[in-house]
Amino acid sequence: MSSPSWTGDDRLARAAWSRLVEPPDLVASAVVATLGAGEAVRHVLTGTPLPSSAVSRRRLDGALARWRVRLPGLDPERDLAMVERRGGRVVVPGDDEWPSRLGDLEHETPVCLWVRGSLALEQAVRSSVAVVGTRSPTAYGEKVAGDLAAGVCDRGIAVVSGAAFGIDAAAHKGALAVGGTTVAVLANGVDRPYPMAHERLIAAVAESGLVVSEQAPGASPMKHRFLARNRIIAALAGATVVVEAAWRSGAISTANRAAGLCRPLGAVPGPAMSALSAGCHRLMRDVGAVCVTDADDVAELAQQIGTRVPAPPPAPVAEHDDLDPVTARVLEALPVRAGRPVGSVARVAGLPADEVRTALARLELMELADRGAGDVWRRAPRRSSGRLQPLPPGRLPTG
Amino acid sequence: MSSPSWTGDDRLARAAWSRLVEPPDLVASAVVATLGAGEAVRHVLTGTPLPSSAVSRRRLDGALARWRVRLPGLDPERDLAMVERRGGRVVVPGDDEWPSRLGDLEHETPVCLWVRGSLALEQAVRSSVAVVGTRSPTAYGEKVAGDLAAGVCDRGIAVVSGAAFGIDAAAHKGALAVGGTTVAVLANGVDRPYPMAHERLIAAVAESGLVVSEQAPGASPMKHRFLARNRIIAALAGATVVVEAAWRSGAISTANRAAGLCRPLGAVPGPAMSALSAGCHRLMRDVGAVCVTDADDVAELAQQIGTRVPAPPPAPVAEHDDLDPVTARVLEALPVRAGRPVGSVARVAGLPADEVRTALARLELMELADRGAGDVWRRAPRRSSGRLQPLPPGRLPTG
Repeated sequence: MSSPSWTGDDRLARAAWSRLVEPPDLVASAVVATLGAGEAVRHVLTGTPLPSSAVSRRRLDGALARWRVRLPGLDPERDLAMVERRGGRVVVPGDDEWPSRLGDLEHETPVCLWVRGSLALEQAVRSSVAVVGTRSPTAYGEKVAGDLAAGVCDRGIAVVSGAAFGIDAAAHKGALAVGGTTVAVLANGVDRPYPMAHERLIAAVAESGLVVSEQAPGASPMKHRFLARNRIIAALAGATVVVEAAWRSGAISTANRAAGLCRPLGAVPGPAMSALSAGCHRLMRDVGAVCVTDADDVAELAQQIGTRVPAPPPAPVAEHDDLDPVTARVLEALPVRAGRPVGSVARVAGLPADEVRTALARLELMELADRGAGDVWRRAPRRSSGRLQPLPPGRLPTG
Repeated sequence: MSSPSWTGDDRLARAAWSRLVEPPDLVASAVVATLGAGEAVRHVLTGTPLPSSAVSRRRLDGALARWRVRLPGLDPERDLAMVERRGGRVVVPGDDEWPSRLGDLEHETPVCLWVRGSLALEQAVRSSVAVVGTRSPTAYGEKVAGDLAAGVCDRGIAVVSGAAFGIDAAAHKGALAVGGTTVAVLANGVDRPYPMAHERLIAAVAESGLVVSEQAPGASPMKHRFLARNRIIAALAGATVVVEAAWRSGAISTANRAAGLCRPLGAVPGPAMSALSAGCHRLMRDVGAVCVTDADDVAELAQQIGTRVPAPPPAPVAEHDDLDPVTARVLEALPVRAGRPVGSVARVAGLPADEVRTALARLELMELADRGAGDVWRRAPRRSSGRLQPLPPGRLPTG
């Protein structure tokens, strides 16, 4: 059997490999890296034993036998033509748009990626965050996923997810809703919308973003392909955020892969007793995931800004918050109704009378204290903020 | 003015100091540490200038003037007798029940503690956790606080809190409900129930647990006293957990004190957009608080067990989870309805035919595969767990 001409084309040879192997296939990675994709595929086509180097003879022979069962009907030119008709292409290492981050996967780097959509992949994911989670979220999780995705898109960051039901879909939709960039990484061929109910969603992602898979066209979704796909999500995105996930779930596997790749990892908190947040809480406690609650948190994670100086939300400021401690203590010691002599105020405040006099003068100027006949003092009636006075039970700041 | 006889009694002298100063008073701490409480209080009584050492003359004179305004009516014997009538006492450094942990407060260590209740303080708090939070919790926060408190009490750990409305009250009540030990640290005198609406709650705590304050009897609650009190909660407890707290709140101050004292710090997560969980989430993100969701988490925090080996909650186990990867792949490649020849199964699985035959034999033995006429194979009808097959859209494990 002579080798077909496409074996001389690295792109087509890699396209062929994507059909021959069930990824991640460490032996295939080693062989392609050593021989080049074309030379390696020629060995498979002809059944010529592969030269042994890092991989043992036994494993090589086993791999060759495994790959050869998928030879019948192998036609990467036809696969590529079919995907091109749908606006797709094959992206291979060396292409400008090949995402350099994928190299972090080492022997698990995909041999190529099938891509639909007009954006350049590397540029699309350069600033990106994976938003993943359970397929059966609560209304809360779904809302948070959509809001986070929209929010990071507003900040110029792309959203990567897996097009599944639940959190994935909410994330893609949140990104699409604000005209952001979103990337769907599938566990099956990019020509096959899966789940079927997401046919329109996946088409919309391909229209304005990218649909990506390492699986050859026509490949169907299988359990191990979802797990394999998760490594690509974790590697493609600059950071990964889990919105809602049970204790054991696919999203947790993505999170663990992200952590293994030293990617920043975030988790959204939820109610302590929610089974669908248990995975997120576990990631925080045991894997060091950062607690993220809004798009700013996520954007910070994706951009790896070193130190965080959060802007506190506006808090009611009591009028006396800028008083020095002595003056504040004197103010606290003033009665609300009947006036009190300076000595009595000093005793309540635990301060010398002369300091109290100075403070009272300051408070009078600030219209916080009123002097009555006979040098007795009380608080001036307040215009706002009942936080300090009068002191109804339980409204005191405490902890 | 000759010194009264009680100045020769360290306990009574410290009781006197607790009335003279507004804690934390670093000058008072230094003077009491240098001279002893009795000798130091004699200086205050007589107005004799204090010997200058670590503290400057100017600060000493200022402090002396400040303390002397509270001399009129000073009578620690009367204070102690009054508290003793209510089943209370004064605990001072050197007592068996003086909590050694308070030493971590250094110059902010209280000069003494007024205590109501029959338990020994040191023994009560040796294994303890502070459960604190907002005075205006959600129903969620209140429930979590009560459940956590009851749960840690069930594990032999005492609950420390501040007797305030909201999370504090829920924590005390949770502990009382299971007959656990709970300690209320007040910002006012132990003879004054505050808030008034908690008169019965505080009485119940004093009955079976302890009510504690550094403030002399009769002292009223003031803003700065709550902040000062928070340092005692943080120091007394072996760990601190914040259940619900806004971005700025008294509970956050307690948490920061706990962190400053190198006490283990936990925070309960809540909905990402809940303003009453924002403080907890911030503690996780910025202060390194551990995400805690149940009494086991909190008990672990309080007991500082080094490594956590959490028992995962029971998860549905798919029947094939114990299959080796090759057999699992063959199972996935089997059609549900019409049988398929071995070669076709091998191609779908991407495995050599001989390996597929072996796997099929194994699957047949496990009653997971059925062989049909003409050596065609399909999955055996399943008795449970539809997770693997049939494969309705979207029910595949993904993430």
